[in-house]
Amino acid sequence: AFSSAPITATLFPGDGIGPEIAESVKQIFREAEVPIEWEEHYVGTEIDPRTQSFLTWESLESVRRNRVGLKGPMATPIGKGHRSLNLTLRKELNLYANVRPCYSLPGYKTRYDDVNLVTIRENTEGEYSGLEHQVVRGVVESLKIITRQASLRVAEYAFHYAKAHGRERVSAIHKANIMQKTDGLFLKCCREVAEKYPEITYEEVVIDNCCMMLVKNPALFDVLVMPNLYGDIISDLCAGLIGGLGLTPSCNIGEGGIALAEAVHGSAPDIAGKNLANPTALLLSGVSMLRHLELHDKADRIQKAVLETIAEGKYRTADLGGSSTTSDFTRAICDHL
Amino acid sequence: AFSSAPITATLFPGDGIGPEIAESVKQIFREAEVPIEWEEHYVGTEIDPRTQSFLTWESLESVRRNRVGLKGPMATPIGKGHRSLNLTLRKELNLYANVRPCYSLPGYKTRYDDVNLVTIRENTEGEYSGLEHQVVRGVVESLKIITRQASLRVAEYAFHYAKAHGRERVSAIHKANIMQKTDGLFLKCCREVAEKYPEITYEEVVIDNCCMMLVKNPALFDVLVMPNLYGDIISDLCAGLIGGLGLTPSCNIGEGGIALAEAVHGSAPDIAGKNLANPTALLLSGVSMLRHLELHDKADRIQKAVLETIAEGKYRTADLGGSSTTSDFTRAICDHL
Ligand SMILES: CC(C)[C@H](C(=O)O)[C@@H](O)C(=O)O
Ligand SMILES: CC(C)[C@H](C(=O)O)[C@@H](O)C(=O)O
Repeated sequence: AFSSAPITATLFPGDGIGPEIAESVKQIFREAEVPIEWEEHYVGTEIDPRTQSFLTWESLESVRRNRVGLKGPMATPIGKGHRSLNLTLRKELNLYANVRPCYSLPGYKTRYDDVNLVTIRENTEGEYSGLEHQVVRGVVESLKIITRQASLRVAEYAFHYAKAHGRERVSAIHKANIMQKTDGLFLKCCREVAEKYPEITYEEVVIDNCCMMLVKNPALFDVLVMPNLYGDIISDLCAGLIGGLGLTPSCNIGEGGIALAEAVHGSAPDIAGKNLANPTALLLSGVSMLRHLELHDKADRIQKAVLETIAEGKYRTADLGGSSTTSDFTRAICDHL
Repeated sequence: AFSSAPITATLFPGDGIGPEIAESVKQIFREAEVPIEWEEHYVGTEIDPRTQSFLTWESLESVRRNRVGLKGPMATPIGKGHRSLNLTLRKELNLYANVRPCYSLPGYKTRYDDVNLVTIRENTEGEYSGLEHQVVRGVVESLKIITRQASLRVAEYAFHYAKAHGRERVSAIHKANIMQKTDGLFLKCCREVAEKYPEITYEEVVIDNCCMMLVKNPALFDVLVMPNLYGDIISDLCAGLIGGLGLTPSCNIGEGGIALAEAVHGSAPDIAGKNLANPTALLLSGVSMLRHLELHDKADRIQKAVLETIAEGKYRTADLGGSSTTSDFTRAICDHL
């Protein structure tokens, strides 16, 4: 049951295939009678003629006001000195946790059929500090920054998420045998939070061993929480286990309850505008957004229709080995609703 | 053909199962009439009573003199402030490249049957600088150091290796989209060296994407070269693809042509002394050492016997799902020589 007043959510269709897959999401959400009104803004590599900027104030303000949004792929503007728009959004909106549920899709065969885990990545610091310099000619250094505040915050989120989703174990991924101070602080914070959740099993796994175990037996893992770069690496590795970034949802959590869900794959300029793109990652990200809004009925219904359509195998886009158009695939999902 | 004077090589059996698997290597090398005389030294977690040190001067001197050695697993001494002995050896002997051939073993089934790649890891700097400090309470930083000298050196080794082993492609793994200066310098050095090897295809792959592609399709890769931490992560990931660290050889290359081959798995104290350990990783590391010495006939013969014994499946140790003892497995390999 939900209130009858619709919720306003920001939508950034993004670049390349973004507009097409966003169209597919809008159509399916409409068909499922999701009580959401989209507030659409363009953020991408084309410069706003009024402001000469890639990212307008209104776009950011829209997410801040609505507290919930969905974004398609954004290319990084070409040329020196441009920062990735994804990183800019993370920074501007203080999106401190990136959450990626990753599960084997029934009927879509990969080498693994037993993946069911969630990666939770610290999204604001670590190796992404941007602090780098040349010490002398031929010697450069980068700073990795770990803070107690950001580590506690993401650890809190991970345990909260595990509990809310009925998950049993949280694994903190680290390399504290080498980076005793930075990763050591991260682990210390995880341990502190773990003590408040005695019902959740807590363990610590060194990143190299974690990657080996993930490819040998991903069923060993449940919720993984980790510093920024390890999260970048491991979340993509996990996506690979179940078929790639075209199939995995992602949601960024910010201070004050902001949730910006996103498809993390690229903007695929080669197939843009050709009605060939696979909207699955954006759709399942939309589902993550609905869960964040506690619209679980709608989330379940859409997720089920997407998974059934893929499992049935009659309509699949080219990246999944089929030959359907985006609109045929979208219509098939609507039929499964 | 080799000269009749035997080559002296250092042997560090190491801790835990180390002595047993070293015994197995010695037996098989003897049986194969490998012209090597072992100079054995203990390096491990037991303190040398004369020097109160974990690592004697004689042990290091032995490798420096012989320029070639084989090491078993060494546990890290317990207690604060002890550095891993592996790291100490890398540092003291300036072992700048860690080389790990990784290929699917015929007859030993994993989810992958098409792995045939080599990871080459920079082994001396990067995230392993040991430089870390607290900036203020709750804020810590680690330094990642990349130098032109070490990057060129490992890139040179990687291309040299690729050429010498008839490999066609070198992929440099990086995160230069985030660490533009450090990983950027690493890439710049790889590009410089690549120009000298026009016959080898050179490409650059971002680490997150690399890990995704490795689990989806490892056959895409041939030789991978990368900074220290990425090498740590990716080499273990690759080992996982083919069955784990118990099956993968490793060899460290140092200045002046030093080669210290090693089993990178743990010392498995739980099964130590029980005649249950799998000597495969140490044996194949020994094979890497023989190749470094250009004793290719012996290397081929031993490698073939090991692989045939595993493929046959009659004698396998418990970690490979069998119930053979170390000595039965060793004898079976001797029979295949
Ligand atoms: C595009 C890149 C800057 C980004 C990152 O490294 O975080 C991407 O890999 C991701 O995971 O969103
Ligand atoms: C034990 C540890 C310090 C070491 C490393 O991180 O290099 C290990 O993982 C390795 O790969 O040899």
